[in-house]
Amino acid sequence: MKFVLTILGSSSALPTSDRFLTAQVLNVNERFFLIDCGEGTQIQLRKCKIPFARIQHIFISHLHGDHVFGLPGLLSTFNLLGRVNDLHIYAHNSLKQIMNQFLGQFYTNLGFKLIYHSLDEENFSRIYEDKSLEVFSFPLKHRIACNGFLFKEKPKMKNIRKEVITTFNIPIKEIVRIKNGADFITEEGEIISNKVLTIEPPKSKSYAFVTDTNFLPDIAEAIKNVDMLYHESTFLQEDEELAKTTGHSTAIEAAKMASISGAKKLLIGHFSTRYKSYNLFLEQALTQFPDVYMAEDGKTFEI
Amino acid sequence: MKFVLTILGSSSALPTSDRFLTAQVLNVNERFFLIDCGEGTQIQLRKCKIPFARIQHIFISHLHGDHVFGLPGLLSTFNLLGRVNDLHIYAHNSLKQIMNQFLGQFYTNLGFKLIYHSLDEENFSRIYEDKSLEVFSFPLKHRIACNGFLFKEKPKMKNIRKEVITTFNIPIKEIVRIKNGADFITEEGEIISNKVLTIEPPKSKSYAFVTDTNFLPDIAEAIKNVDMLYHESTFLQEDEELAKTTGHSTAIEAAKMASISGAKKLLIGHFSTRYKSYNLFLEQALTQFPDVYMAEDGKTFEI
Repeated sequence: MKFVLTILGSSSALPTSDRFLTAQVLNVNERFFLIDCGEGTQIQLRKCKIPFARIQHIFISHLHGDHVFGLPGLLSTFNLLGRVNDLHIYAHNSLKQIMNQFLGQFYTNLGFKLIYHSLDEENFSRIYEDKSLEVFSFPLKHRIACNGFLFKEKPKMKNIRKEVITTFNIPIKEIVRIKNGADFITEEGEIISNKVLTIEPPKSKSYAFVTDTNFLPDIAEAIKNVDMLYHESTFLQEDEELAKTTGHSTAIEAAKMASISGAKKLLIGHFSTRYKSYNLFLEQALTQFPDVYMAEDGKTFEI
Repeated sequence: MKFVLTILGSSSALPTSDRFLTAQVLNVNERFFLIDCGEGTQIQLRKCKIPFARIQHIFISHLHGDHVFGLPGLLSTFNLLGRVNDLHIYAHNSLKQIMNQFLGQFYTNLGFKLIYHSLDEENFSRIYEDKSLEVFSFPLKHRIACNGFLFKEKPKMKNIRKEVITTFNIPIKEIVRIKNGADFITEEGEIISNKVLTIEPPKSKSYAFVTDTNFLPDIAEAIKNVDMLYHESTFLQEDEELAKTTGHSTAIEAAKMASISGAKKLLIGHFSTRYKSYNLFLEQALTQFPDVYMAEDGKTFEI
C-alpha cells in the first residue's frame, strides 16, 4: 500500500527560482490527493509525472493567493485534456463563487462537474471517507479562516496465511471473518487460534498538513501520533514576534507541535524568502524534535 | 542601446515540463516590457533574473487563461515586495473589473496604482510613447478579441564626431541641430557639411508580437519590415484545418507572414503539445522563409 507525499511547492508568499508556492500531493495507493494549489501547481504536477486523471480531490487550506492561484489554470487544463470525471474541492465557502465567476470571465466552460465541500471553521470534522481512507479538517489560527487536514488510513484487515487454507480446509466464506480476527473451528471441532492463521496487517498510515497558523497547542489532540506532520515554518526564532503578528510559526514552534502531538516525523516548509540559508530552519527545529525533514520541490516522502 | 527579447513561456494552452505558457519580456535599454502573462510568469521572471521593479508596462493580447492567469500572482508579488510605482496594463476592456474583483476576493489590496489602457479592437493604434519608443496595437483574428503589438524605436539622432567640436569651434547650442542633420557655418563663413560632422546613428529596432490568430494578410502593412516578427505557430501543416477553426496558425502560415511583411527574422512559438517533435515546426517554416528561430523558455534574442 502506497502512502507517499510529493512536495510540489515549498516557498511562502513569494516563489523563488527553486521553490514554487504551496502545493503537495499525497499518493494513497495510486489515488492522488492534492493539497493546496499555488501558482504553477499544474507545471509541478507534470514535472513530477503525477497522472492528472487520478486527481479526484483537492483540499484548499485557505483563500490566500499563494495557496490557490494555481487552481484556475489547473481546472482549465483538466478541461482541455477532456476530463469528464467529477472533481471534488474542499475549501472555505466563498471559493465556489469566486472560481465560477473567474473562469466564466475567461470563457472557460468546464466539461466536468466541480463539487464543492465547505470546510467547517469551528470544529474538527470528517470531510472525506472511502473504504480505506478518512480525511479530517480542523481550524487553524491565521489572519483569515484557515484549516489543516489529517489523512488517515483505516485499520487494515489481517492477512491470512496461504498455507493454512489447505491445511485446515477453510471454506472461502470463513476468510473475511478470520481476517477480521476470528478463530477457526475445524470439522473435527478443533479451535485454531487466529494468531496461527493470520499475519498482522501493515500499519495504517497517517499524515497531517498544518499550514499558515500561529503555534496552536489546541490541535495536538486532533493530529495525535501521526506518522508524519507537515507544519509550516515560515520564520526563524529571531522573528518570533513577526510570526505571531502575521499568523505564522517559527521552526521551533513547528518542532514543538511535533513533540507535543507525538508525531513520528516532522516535515517543515513554507519558508520565508528573507533568510540567506534554509539550513537554519532545520538547525532550529532539531533543537526541539529529533526527526525533522525539509520540504523541497519535487522531493517525495514514503510515510 | 539594448533591444533584447526574453522568452518566458512558449507552449500553447497547456504547459509542459519544459515550456511554460505565453509570456515574453522586451528589454529596451533596461526598461522591461512584459508581453502576456501566462501562469508561472513570475517564476520565469525570477529564473531569468528580470528586475521586477523595472516592469512598468504589461501588454495582454487577449483574455484566454493561458495568456493571463499569471497576472494575479504577479500583482500580488509586486505588492508583497512593497511596490509603490504605477503599473500600466494594456488589455481588453473587461480585464480591469475581472482583476479588481478577483484580487479583492483574495484579500489583496494593492499598495500601488494599476492603470488600465483599453485596446482598440478595430484599428491599428498607438498605445504607448516615450522619447525613444512607440508601441502600437492591432487587431488579430481569434475566437475572442485579440490584439498584436508592435514595438518600435523612434529614429535616433546622429552622433557628433568629438574631434570636430574643437576643430571647428562649435558652440554647445549648435550641437542638437547638427545631430538632427544640419550643416554648420564657421565664424569664417565656411559651410561644413553634416556628413563631415556626424556619424550615422544605430538603426532603430522594431519587434512585432503576433499571437493567437488565423493567418491574416491584413496585418502585413502594420508590421512591415520589422527586425523580428514573433508569430504564433500552434499547428503543423497536417492540421491546417484545425488551425483555421480554432483561430490559430500553422508554421507555414507564420513563415508566409514573415515573408509578405518583409520581416528580417521570424521567431515562432505557442506550439501545440500534440506533436512528438518540435523540429517539424522549424522545418516547415523554413520552406517559406529563410531566417527562422524557435521560441524556448529562457532563451534571449538580441534584435
